[in-house]
Amino acid sequence: MAAVPQIGILVEFNYEDLEVWYPLLRFREEGFHTFSIGPEAGKVYQSKKGYPCKADKSIDDVKAEDLSALIIPGGFAPDYWRRDQRFLDLVKTMFDSGKTVASICHGPWLLCSAKVLNGKRVTCFHSIKDDVINAGATYEDASVVVDGNLVTSRIPTDLPDFCKAIIKQIKEKQ
Amino acid sequence: MAAVPQIGILVEFNYEDLEVWYPLLRFREEGFHTFSIGPEAGKVYQSKKGYPCKADKSIDDVKAEDLSALIIPGGFAPDYWRRDQRFLDLVKTMFDSGKTVASICHGPWLLCSAKVLNGKRVTCFHSIKDDVINAGATYEDASVVVDGNLVTSRIPTDLPDFCKAIIKQIKEKQ
Repeated sequence: MAAVPQIGILVEFNYEDLEVWYPLLRFREEGFHTFSIGPEAGKVYQSKKGYPCKADKSIDDVKAEDLSALIIPGGFAPDYWRRDQRFLDLVKTMFDSGKTVASICHGPWLLCSAKVLNGKRVTCFHSIKDDVINAGATYEDASVVVDGNLVTSRIPTDLPDFCKAIIKQIKEKQ
Repeated sequence: MAAVPQIGILVEFNYEDLEVWYPLLRFREEGFHTFSIGPEAGKVYQSKKGYPCKADKSIDDVKAEDLSALIIPGGFAPDYWRRDQRFLDLVKTMFDSGKTVASICHGPWLLCSAKVLNGKRVTCFHSIKDDVINAGATYEDASVVVDGNLVTSRIPTDLPDFCKAIIKQIKEKQ
C-alpha cells in the first residue's frame, strides 16, 4: 500500500480564512495527513477576519523530503512568509525536488521571492499579477493553472478546482 | 509670492497609521495645503490598527496638474490602490509630468503596477524588495532614496528623512 500523503499548509497572521481551512479539511477528507505549518508550533494565528488557526508544526520542524505537497494560501500572510528565509528555503527545496507546490490568491508573493517562477505558467489574485509577470512567469486568467509540479489559483471561489488539481497530482505520484 | 504647494496623500483601508498621519500633519505644519485622497470623498478608512482617516477628496476629483506632490503610504492599502485604474493613472501622469511622487514601505507596489520603476533607484519595505527589483528598479537600503522626482523610504521610522527630502524638493521647485 502506498504511504499516506503528507500535506503541509502554511499559516500566519492575516491568512485568508477559506484558503487555509478549505484545503486543510478537504485533504483530510481525502485521507491525506494534513497539517498547518507556522513560524511557531502551537501558536494560534488570526485570519484576516479573526478566525483562529493553531500551527500544528513549526517551519523549523518540517523537511521537504517528508512532504508530498506544500500549500501556500493567500491573504496578507504571504507578505510575512516571504521575509523569512526558512519559508523561502522550504519552498525552493520542495520545488526543486519536484514535489507539488500549490499557491492561491496572494500566495505567489512567496514564490516570487523564492525565485521559482521564471518561465512558469501561473495564475494569482489580480492585484499581484504584475509581480508574478515581473518575476518571469506567464499569467493566465483561469480558476487553476498546472505547470509541472506548480499548481496555482486566483480566489477563494476557485478552491474546488484548486484542490481537485492538487489531489489529482498527488494521487498520480503515489 | 509663490503659490501654496498642494500635497495629496493617498488613503485606503489597512493604511499604515503613521505613514499617512505623519506626512499629513508635517506638511500642514510646513504651510503646504495637504489633503487625503481616497476611493470615495468623505468616507472614513481604518488603518491597520483601526485609526480612522476621512478622505478629504475622491480620486475622481483630483487632477495631476493641480498637485505639487503625491504621497503613497504603506500598510496593505497599496494592494488595493494598484487594482484601481484611477490610482494607476494619477501616479503615471504625476510621474511623467515631473511632479514629486513619494512612496514609503509597501507603497511602491502601486509604482510597480503604474510601470514607473524601470531604471530607477528606490528603496522600500524589505518584504517587497523582490517586486521592485523585478519591476526594473535598483534597490538601495537607505532611509531615503531620491532619484529625480521619485522619493522613496522603507519604514515608519524613516518618516523624518522622507518628509525632509520631499519638502526640500517641493521648495526647490517653487
